[in-house]
Amino acid sequence: MKSYRKELWFHIPGRRAFTNITDEVERCLKDSGIREGLVLVNAMHITASVFINDDESGLHRDYDRWLEKLAPHEPVSQYLHNRTGEDNGDAHLKRQVMGREVVVAVTAGKLDFGPWEQIFYGEFDGGRKKRVLVKIIGE
Amino acid sequence: MKSYRKELWFHIPGRRAFTNITDEVERCLKDSGIREGLVLVNAMHITASVFINDDESGLHRDYDRWLEKLAPHEPVSQYLHNRTGEDNGDAHLKRQVMGREVVVAVTAGKLDFGPWEQIFYGEFDGGRKKRVLVKIIGE
Amino acid sequence: MKSYRKELWFHIPGRRAFTNITDEVERCLKDSGIREGLVLVNAMHITASVFINDDESGLHRDYDRWLEKLAPHEPVSQYLHNRTGEDNGDAHLKRQVMGREVVVAVTAGKLDFGPWEQIFYGEFDGGRKKRVLVKIIGE
Repeated sequence: MKSYRKELWFHIPGRRAFTNITDEVERCLKDSGIREGLVLVNAMHITASVFINDDESGLHRDYDRWLEKLAPHEPVSQYLHNRTGEDNGDAHLKRQVMGREVVVAVTAGKLDFGPWEQIFYGEFDGGRKKRVLVKIIGE
Repeated sequence: MKSYRKELWFHIPGRRAFTNITDEVERCLKDSGIREGLVLVNAMHITASVFINDDESGLHRDYDRWLEKLAPHEPVSQYLHNRTGEDNGDAHLKRQVMGREVVVAVTAGKLDFGPWEQIFYGEFDGGRKKRVLVKIIGE
Repeated sequence: MKSYRKELWFHIPGRRAFTNITDEVERCLKDSGIREGLVLVNAMHITASVFINDDESGLHRDYDRWLEKLAPHEPVSQYLHNRTGEDNGDAHLKRQVMGREVVVAVTAGKLDFGPWEQIFYGEFDGGRKKRVLVKIIGE
């Protein structure tokens, strides 16, 4: 069994954004030399997500609006978590809806994807450097 | 390390439905000959889910009502994504709540499940052929 | 390839609670002797979750309030599932938001975590013994 590990770093200037990281994960897979196995891609921070969906800007704005409806940022006083001095209570909730991680099959050296699957980093509390972990195991 | 791959095809005639795919995944596991490892089961489409819960028809109707409340299909004009000509904006949101994939332990050649765990394909934008990927790694 | 399996048992006296299980998962990893691979941690019951987030009591109360808003326990008659004689329809919905499982990378014999990542058992229908499965594969 082979294993491979890499951290991807992101610095999203605003509070929230979705970034397509499929190419970076594919480069990791190529570097790993693994042909059959599993790739785990996870946010290493608890106010961010990694998820798979469509690379369509209208959809991304729909996600943002919808998450704001389910777990609004304002008023920040509505979250007990924010009594710690943070203002990111909403980000911890949004991240649960969108998920922490994806696991993707590796087949014949490629991400084994359907026609529209793309991997995204979802930032819900930006403005500082944060990381995604790529771990690949297989042969 | 052994690996196994199979696509399961579905054609749900209506817009939304939940289909129990546990037996099909178990057949894949048997075919694979793998006794210890992990099974990944994921929707290959971005308006569908794979999830684990109870095979109880009342619960499935509860899920459907609840997802319609969280992300209603109508009016389709509420989703920017639908400006692309699609009418499935809601389906992309519902799929995030229910999840893309499950990872299940394989122990002694079986899906290592609690008493009520069953695997479902969740369709949120049916009426055409769609796929689920089963990837198994182990020994 | 090595594999390791252990069940963790919980008995939450009330209906809902979040329990930090990171130390128990780390002990499993140490016992396994696995240095590189993947850990799967999943609820074996369908009204409970395993998820990764922050160990902060205010946040946990925020999660509880928010989940009660998204899928209230009362009135129990609002869920068709409860016609089976259960009163836990809400718990099956809450569990989908928080997720069934996490997959964590193992690197150099440790859970490969960002600074605040902790693993939680989320109970939404307590008052009886329930299990979490830890399955580790690797070398």
